[in-house]
Amino acid sequence: MAEKSFQELYPEETQHCYGCGVLNERGHRIQSFWDGDVSICQFDPEPHHMALPGYVYGGLIASLIDCHGTGTAAAAAHRAEGREMGTDPPLRFVTGSLHVDYLKPTPLGVTLTLRGRAKEIRGRVVTVEVTLSAEAIQTAKGEVVAVRMPEDWVRNLMAPKGT
Amino acid sequence: MAEKSFQELYPEETQHCYGCGVLNERGHRIQSFWDGDVSICQFDPEPHHMALPGYVYGGLIASLIDCHGTGTAAAAAHRAEGREMGTDPPLRFVTGSLHVDYLKPTPLGVTLTLRGRAKEIRGRVVTVEVTLSAEAIQTAKGEVVAVRMPEDWVRNLMAPKGT
Repeated sequence: MAEKSFQELYPEETQHCYGCGVLNERGHRIQSFWDGDVSICQFDPEPHHMALPGYVYGGLIASLIDCHGTGTAAAAAHRAEGREMGTDPPLRFVTGSLHVDYLKPTPLGVTLTLRGRAKEIRGRVVTVEVTLSAEAIQTAKGEVVAVRMPEDWVRNLMAPKGT
Repeated sequence: MAEKSFQELYPEETQHCYGCGVLNERGHRIQSFWDGDVSICQFDPEPHHMALPGYVYGGLIASLIDCHGTGTAAAAAHRAEGREMGTDPPLRFVTGSLHVDYLKPTPLGVTLTLRGRAKEIRGRVVTVEVTLSAEAIQTAKGEVVAVRMPEDWVRNLMAPKGT
């Protein structure tokens, strides 16, 4: 059986995000996986995701870094507790802050690779560094300060409807 | 005649951006205008632009701040030269860095208002502060460091095709 992505292991009620929700049919549906201590996500922008002809627009790059960052935070938080994603209780993160440095124009038409690393886990806050490369060239880097979602949000989302 | 937005006054060859390009039929096509010294943009997210049910996903917020920020940079740079956007030479900006602080969840289903202010113009670099509000509540703030596009990029994009 193929390894599941971080996003496939989110509680189903939190799988609607435009950037990373498996259940968002209109969204980017990014998929992130561990490769040792580094999280990897590959993404192929569509032709209309352009800034200028031939280049990826910055908002997509910010979105990919954001969602790959919160996914990496969730995966790293589970690891820090010595258990797999998908076990209870689910640890799900939202973005507290996002910083992106655009180092070079990112060419459109090639697969982008994001690499994340949990730099610090402190209480409910995980700081994740992310790089973005187009083929072998790093074109952007970012930092996501991810904050664990309050338990009652997750519980409320997961509550049976109508109760 | 209605006032033109910053984005409608960009050189046509630079109107393809997914976030702000008037010519990108699949994109967000944001429109920014001056209100005194503050730039204003209003945007209605679509239902699929969600993070969790009922809330706007962070990548869209980053995209709006990014494109409204570079638009404000262009408008402020023209103003600093004492001339209107749409006069030659066009001053067009790309993003050097983007920072977003997510202060509160942003509700889906209401009009978002972005307000920008050029904090500093130094040579080719304009730093723009942006706030984002949902109805009267500020839910995010950001800073865009916008860098003026090299003249040869703009010239190359504007060159007649086939030359």
